[in-house]
Amino acid sequence: MTKPIIVLVTPQLGQNIGKAARGMLNFGLTELRLIAPRDGWPNPEAGPAASGADIVLEKAQVFETTKDALADCNLVYASTVRRREQVMPVVGPDEMADEIHALPQGRAAILFGPERSGLEAEDVSLADKIVTVPINPEFGSLNLAQAVILLSYEWSRRADAGLEKPTAKDLEPPATKIELDSLVDHLNRALDEKGYFFPPERTEATQQTLRSILTKPGWSERELKALHGVIRALSKG
Amino acid sequence: MTKPIIVLVTPQLGQNIGKAARGMLNFGLTELRLIAPRDGWPNPEAGPAASGADIVLEKAQVFETTKDALADCNLVYASTVRRREQVMPVVGPDEMADEIHALPQGRAAILFGPERSGLEAEDVSLADKIVTVPINPEFGSLNLAQAVILLSYEWSRRADAGLEKPTAKDLEPPATKIELDSLVDHLNRALDEKGYFFPPERTEATQQTLRSILTKPGWSERELKALHGVIRALSKG
Repeated sequence: MTKPIIVLVTPQLGQNIGKAARGMLNFGLTELRLIAPRDGWPNPEAGPAASGADIVLEKAQVFETTKDALADCNLVYASTVRRREQVMPVVGPDEMADEIHALPQGRAAILFGPERSGLEAEDVSLADKIVTVPINPEFGSLNLAQAVILLSYEWSRRADAGLEKPTAKDLEPPATKIELDSLVDHLNRALDEKGYFFPPERTEATQQTLRSILTKPGWSERELKALHGVIRALSKG
Repeated sequence: MTKPIIVLVTPQLGQNIGKAARGMLNFGLTELRLIAPRDGWPNPEAGPAASGADIVLEKAQVFETTKDALADCNLVYASTVRRREQVMPVVGPDEMADEIHALPQGRAAILFGPERSGLEAEDVSLADKIVTVPINPEFGSLNLAQAVILLSYEWSRRADAGLEKPTAKDLEPPATKIELDSLVDHLNRALDEKGYFFPPERTEATQQTLRSILTKPGWSERELKALHGVIRALSKG
């Protein structure tokens, strides 16, 4: 049974971190990661809001970048509304829960953005899929803790049912994010040497497109190895 | 489609009434009833906590007793943990949602108790069934607003009505096989020029590996175009 890691990107209020921890533990999730929390960490306001979910806060890990926090993860969801500019699969909470439970091995994570602004495109592009809670189109007002609790709840519904997909274990597990990053970096360097990124101000957008193309398939380690070979071969002068 | 009425029995804080209203409206529920709210009604603390769900608060009805509030209801659930002393069916949120949606006509309601103590036995006995959110047996700490939001969410999962659901059609359709073949051919030619396929008797197996790597993602036309560009760029002498 794969338990997703809850990753809060630059959360603002300690209170909301505490509420998220409480929401998680209600549904059996314990692993919390924080990316550059605005008011530092530990935060004295988190504890009281956690209403006893102290274990989650004590074990929380802090990272400087989203990329670092996801380095050991295999399957990552970005909790956000759908985006025009992002070509990425969008799933509902139930599909997300099914997929996490079906993950044969490795780690899953769910990314949540800061309270006011939500996830930025750059963070979303680090995920494999977008997960969107279907809400009232005329009144969508889910706060951070509520989003965490709803997705934790959906995960636990499937955990209860003990849904196991026997066929999943026949598949090769997807490579971790850090392995995937290294492929993306390799390709970017190789392209850069050939003067591919032009004009310079388009570089970031182009690199994001390439990243989203390469993170879509969920390639295995073996497949990544083959692709490194391809890039090396093509780059030869 | 039967929309359940949310009934809060002697809620203590106006803030929690506002949060409950916000949770409801997120999932399309609008009818709120209050039984003898501790601090009277209207309560100035409810509005800010509702974050814009004012319509729910404005239309909220106040009753003196639970019995009065349920007078016009046909199917009533008491949101509480299961109780030894109560001989009453206990369902999960999903069963509750199914049953409410299956109600041919008439009104359904969900009862929630006051923040600190929860529903009293007397109020529970006015319901037809108990609904219990399955939570971590070692850490059960759902507050009033969270319980309201989870049950509202479960109701809305069953209601297709107007809630935005992520659909496959938002995604770009995968490219056709012939377009994919042309990418595979392009890569094979480029690699061949660099002497990648060696020894010759391994060529077919290697090309098959590459084909299976490239056909896995289901890339769109737009993505294929980008990849053709990448191969062209890398192949430059």
